[in-house]
Amino acid sequence: MHRILKPDIVIINGIVVTQDSVGEVIENGVVCVSGEKITYVGRPDDIDIRSADRVIDARGGIVMPGLINTHTHAAMSSFRGLADDLELMDWLNNYIFPAETQLDYDNVYTGTMLACAEMMLSGTTCFCDMYLFEDAVAEAARAAGMRAVVGEVLYDFDSPNYGSLAKGFEYTIDLIEKWHADALISVAVEPHSPYLCSPELLEKAAFLSEKYQIPLIIHLSETTEEKNTIIERYGRTPVAHLAEIDLLSPRVLACHCVVVDDNDIALLKQRGANVSHNPESNMKLASGIAPVPEMIAAGICVGLGTDGPASNNNLDMFMEMDTAAKIHKVNLLDPTVMDARMVLKMATRDAARALGLENVTGSLEVGKKGDIIIVDTKKPHMTPMYDVFSHIVYSASGSDVNTVLINGRLVVENGQLLTININEVMSGMQVMADKIRRMHNWQLN
Amino acid sequence: MHRILKPDIVIINGIVVTQDSVGEVIENGVVCVSGEKITYVGRPDDIDIRSADRVIDARGGIVMPGLINTHTHAAMSSFRGLADDLELMDWLNNYIFPAETQLDYDNVYTGTMLACAEMMLSGTTCFCDMYLFEDAVAEAARAAGMRAVVGEVLYDFDSPNYGSLAKGFEYTIDLIEKWHADALISVAVEPHSPYLCSPELLEKAAFLSEKYQIPLIIHLSETTEEKNTIIERYGRTPVAHLAEIDLLSPRVLACHCVVVDDNDIALLKQRGANVSHNPESNMKLASGIAPVPEMIAAGICVGLGTDGPASNNNLDMFMEMDTAAKIHKVNLLDPTVMDARMVLKMATRDAARALGLENVTGSLEVGKKGDIIIVDTKKPHMTPMYDVFSHIVYSASGSDVNTVLINGRLVVENGQLLTININEVMSGMQVMADKIRRMHNWQLN
Repeated sequence: MHRILKPDIVIINGIVVTQDSVGEVIENGVVCVSGEKITYVGRPDDIDIRSADRVIDARGGIVMPGLINTHTHAAMSSFRGLADDLELMDWLNNYIFPAETQLDYDNVYTGTMLACAEMMLSGTTCFCDMYLFEDAVAEAARAAGMRAVVGEVLYDFDSPNYGSLAKGFEYTIDLIEKWHADALISVAVEPHSPYLCSPELLEKAAFLSEKYQIPLIIHLSETTEEKNTIIERYGRTPVAHLAEIDLLSPRVLACHCVVVDDNDIALLKQRGANVSHNPESNMKLASGIAPVPEMIAAGICVGLGTDGPASNNNLDMFMEMDTAAKIHKVNLLDPTVMDARMVLKMATRDAARALGLENVTGSLEVGKKGDIIIVDTKKPHMTPMYDVFSHIVYSASGSDVNTVLINGRLVVENGQLLTININEVMSGMQVMADKIRRMHNWQLN
Repeated sequence: MHRILKPDIVIINGIVVTQDSVGEVIENGVVCVSGEKITYVGRPDDIDIRSADRVIDARGGIVMPGLINTHTHAAMSSFRGLADDLELMDWLNNYIFPAETQLDYDNVYTGTMLACAEMMLSGTTCFCDMYLFEDAVAEAARAAGMRAVVGEVLYDFDSPNYGSLAKGFEYTIDLIEKWHADALISVAVEPHSPYLCSPELLEKAAFLSEKYQIPLIIHLSETTEEKNTIIERYGRTPVAHLAEIDLLSPRVLACHCVVVDDNDIALLKQRGANVSHNPESNMKLASGIAPVPEMIAAGICVGLGTDGPASNNNLDMFMEMDTAAKIHKVNLLDPTVMDARMVLKMATRDAARALGLENVTGSLEVGKKGDIIIVDTKKPHMTPMYDVFSHIVYSASGSDVNTVLINGRLVVENGQLLTININEVMSGMQVMADKIRRMHNWQLN
């Protein structure tokens, strides 16, 4: 009667939060992985498991899909806490931009590796990145064993990486060709924003996205200042501007969308564009509160993200979920909006969809890749448990994750990284930070 | 030349964040403790330490005063996640109040012990509590080795603990007499709120607070509904109502103060009352955003608190600091307000002052009690470090705390509790939670 399975890995004794289309939870569940893929999700008495290479005992913990960070600049871990509590332009012009002139391939590699370590330890299995030297980001993610969507930032002025813009498109095409068959890495076209990209740049980016059928990722309507700039320049809101030049499509992930009106929301929905919500960064930089409940109600797919570690200042998606659940309640003075289930969906299933990875990750379903985390619930702040979704969103933090699998491979076990020599990476980062600190002292004196 | 010290405990190799009156930070600092008290804070080469009983190596971590949670209902850990994302009255009437009818001394003791475990593990060394069966709270805190301000909640109707209100005052006086000489526990008079307490009750509470020179702690102006109720009943705002009956004084800690206007703020300042700020609870329950930058600018002493674990849903003061720093930035659209230093002050020095414990705790200064924590910085999300205040507020979480001393006693070492059998407490809580779950099933079916 029972189906016989010979999986590579079996996870037992977990509360399995599948994040499938109906959000099923299996109280005493089993998840099997063979090779890269999930081959079984269900109750232990419905299968006959023979000769699994490895049995992982979840010890009553929560077994769930790995979290997906839909927007970050991973290598900005180098600048974590370099400057805070400042006006955006002061922060950028006097701290971040001068520090970024020192970046090179190796620095970005080290910064990304550090960020991958932080993300994996806190239960994130996939991230979407926008920065410079993105080939280094891809190499670091692959070495870390982490799933990533990478894309070189494109703007009208010269880049410390590729030089002139034409080279930026060449660099992007090289990335696409190099990584197109990779198991972990996918590539996106990433024009920075409507205010740093000419309509010609944006049109070319849209063309590449369509030609290669890959995501187009862009900052959009992050601040009132941006909105005013674009209206002044083009006579339309940033969203309407992108719609006008026919850039919006279901392949688009628009990051932030803080300052959007009803017409903008209708346009995003009409064109099928996706949104990345980054509440902690938007709060810290005082950008505003994105109308996420309204966007979701309109039918837009919204994924969650942390933004870069220099404007957050960590990459913990559990804390980001907690903030996402709370900020909209107080903003709308309605405690029933953005409930825990909806927020978890934004960090898993909908995040995958927003990145075009809905067939790859974001839920525990047979046929998807084995991107799985286990959250330890035997801790005072996770006791007692009445509702697993409440605990994930409101009580847990990334440090409660003790086991992580990505693409079927065990990468974190008992809270320890198996794929990264973390002491080496942290030492490398200290050397970099010392340089940045010296540079700053020189500048500030 | 050097002063010779023979301390019981010496902490070395730390970045010492003193939180003294000028906020001094000592890069490679030493803190000595003898008996209950701090006997030295400074550089290693300024003293000659002989025969310390115990040397604790901070390994480059942050040595700082323990955090002080100025408002919670610790034993509500029993109801953590029982019900979320609901209208306040639905939550209270259909979930919390029915569950609270089951409370007794033992339940409150277990719930408080669980909360103490969570707080100590996450770097909180002192909490201020308002609930039922507060003698159980005091006993649990003493057994846990934690500093606490306790006070039995008083209101116009009968209590599941003491019965009628007259008995409530007797119970409070018994608490005062029992605990007045305790090293860890102090007692406050705690009328619930202007809307659940008659003017007569409040006047009597103020009288007790003055007679015994102890804090008076009260919920105040938490919601617009409360403000409207009090205006309707008394023709004044809740703050003005308390001022009118002469309740406000420097001994008062007013919790929440979300819905206060300029006149309320002026009254609070004029009478020297202190405020407890609970941003995560105010967000989750959609109460609103307290005008904390305005209150601080007016000269009011504001301490930070988590509120109870059922409306947060954890007691992590590091996460609360992060939220406190961010929510006011986005609310005022100004990234420079509530900087990291100011927020840490709210969770340490000013929190102690708000509770009348300014000579006891809240900073690392000679003569104060040894309430000290060490934060591990050798972690990816704490790397690199440019600014220690930024890391404490924006990057750390409670799980980064590895060492805790309270009143000169080591209570957490290598992230492990030394004073509580945590597995026993968690098992006890599970039994309680099963009862509550059964009761709820019965109610809901």
